[in-house]
Amino acid sequence: MTTPSIQPGTRADVRYLLRLGDACLVLSHRLSEWCGHAPILEEDLALGNIALDLLGQARALLTRAGQLDGQALDEDQLAFLREERHYLNPVLMELPRGDFAFTQARNLIVASWLLPLWTRLQDSADAEIAAIAAKAVKEVRYHQQHAAEWVVRLGDGSEESTRRMKDALAQLWPYVNELFASDDVDAAAEASGLGPAWSSLKPAWDAAMDEVLAEARLTRPKDTPHVYAGRLGVHSEHMGHMLATMQSLQRAYPGGVW
Amino acid sequence: MTTPSIQPGTRADVRYLLRLGDACLVLSHRLSEWCGHAPILEEDLALGNIALDLLGQARALLTRAGQLDGQALDEDQLAFLREERHYLNPVLMELPRGDFAFTQARNLIVASWLLPLWTRLQDSADAEIAAIAAKAVKEVRYHQQHAAEWVVRLGDGSEESTRRMKDALAQLWPYVNELFASDDVDAAAEASGLGPAWSSLKPAWDAAMDEVLAEARLTRPKDTPHVYAGRLGVHSEHMGHMLATMQSLQRAYPGGVW
Repeated sequence: MTTPSIQPGTRADVRYLLRLGDACLVLSHRLSEWCGHAPILEEDLALGNIALDLLGQARALLTRAGQLDGQALDEDQLAFLREERHYLNPVLMELPRGDFAFTQARNLIVASWLLPLWTRLQDSADAEIAAIAAKAVKEVRYHQQHAAEWVVRLGDGSEESTRRMKDALAQLWPYVNELFASDDVDAAAEASGLGPAWSSLKPAWDAAMDEVLAEARLTRPKDTPHVYAGRLGVHSEHMGHMLATMQSLQRAYPGGVW
Repeated sequence: MTTPSIQPGTRADVRYLLRLGDACLVLSHRLSEWCGHAPILEEDLALGNIALDLLGQARALLTRAGQLDGQALDEDQLAFLREERHYLNPVLMELPRGDFAFTQARNLIVASWLLPLWTRLQDSADAEIAAIAAKAVKEVRYHQQHAAEWVVRLGDGSEESTRRMKDALAQLWPYVNELFASDDVDAAAEASGLGPAWSSLKPAWDAAMDEVLAEARLTRPKDTPHVYAGRLGVHSEHMGHMLATMQSLQRAYPGGVW
């Protein structure tokens, strides 16, 4: 029995970039599921555009990770031909798209995390990553504002919209810790100047979230002790189903291109 | 670009058997989605067992179709390596599993159709098919009774269960016509003695359904003019997603066996 699956190596810098690249890739896929289903046309376009921005970031990161990995793996192989355990995104990104409130709340959480991360990555010792970051930081700034507007509008809105936004935050909060967990991969990235340890992003994220939640008149959920391990390749039950859909074309037509 | 997908030929007898085999295969998959999710343990086992019976029927039919096709295609290739347009099950089978009422109502509709079909196939001119039918007819008789009991229990039950059963029947009814549509494939099967034209099954189905619906104190929905064309390979939006999940293992591990 042979498998066409590929497996990246275990270099710390490759893993650091895959964690971020997979975060962008998987959230992009979840947002793409809104295509044609958003409540208003403008938002259908907005979510689609945000998904495309994230996909662009994912492509650049996976390409760079593939170069550093030394196996000549390209972005398509890394995006579509790994097994579940070799995707390193935080579990938060793979949760099913949920309702519109859930989607905007997650977008706010993620964009408020990506914004300080991309900001710091502009100073990466890896010139390629610094260049990617310079473009991405502008995109993510818009994503953060866009999501913040919706969280305020829904959170400080009708009885139903407030309830849904509260429910969304309560569902999402247990998954937040993983965005700020650091380990030897982060330590190596910080030591080499590749990028910051994720734990260092917490103060900026806290400040951004607290500002939006205050404006939305929402109480910040209590922090929880959960730490999921998507960054280590240990995913929720949703990941395999998502990958089955996401990989189906490339698995059925190996090497297929447009 | 090469694809590992296989494509059966267009012989009428092969298509006749694939239509029935795919009907069993796809409904089996939908029922398997209940595994671990049924409202009571006994029903978790019952739905799992019905799914396994249908899978056994599918295996036998696909194996026979593969033999007749002359390309030496085996049951696994036919089950997992075709493209969507080459699956010939009626659309009814591929609809998402729905709630428990929807599942039992569909099981009743399908079993009340399979029962006269397998009964007639016991006299098939193809000795292999006649032997498969002799076993299948006993299984499907139990499926029909089991589903009938639930339709009565829910249909003549609480306010909520009655409402849900009515909703389920209303959703399912437009897909029923396809089970009784006949074309040149049926004509060839009838002429060769392979099996009956699907249109000839309607009186038996009507009688079985009317009996159960009367006992459940449910009004039979009005027949609709819809005729879906799953038997021609034209499927609903749900089919591709289902196949992505159903095929994922075989696509990721080509030729994989236990």
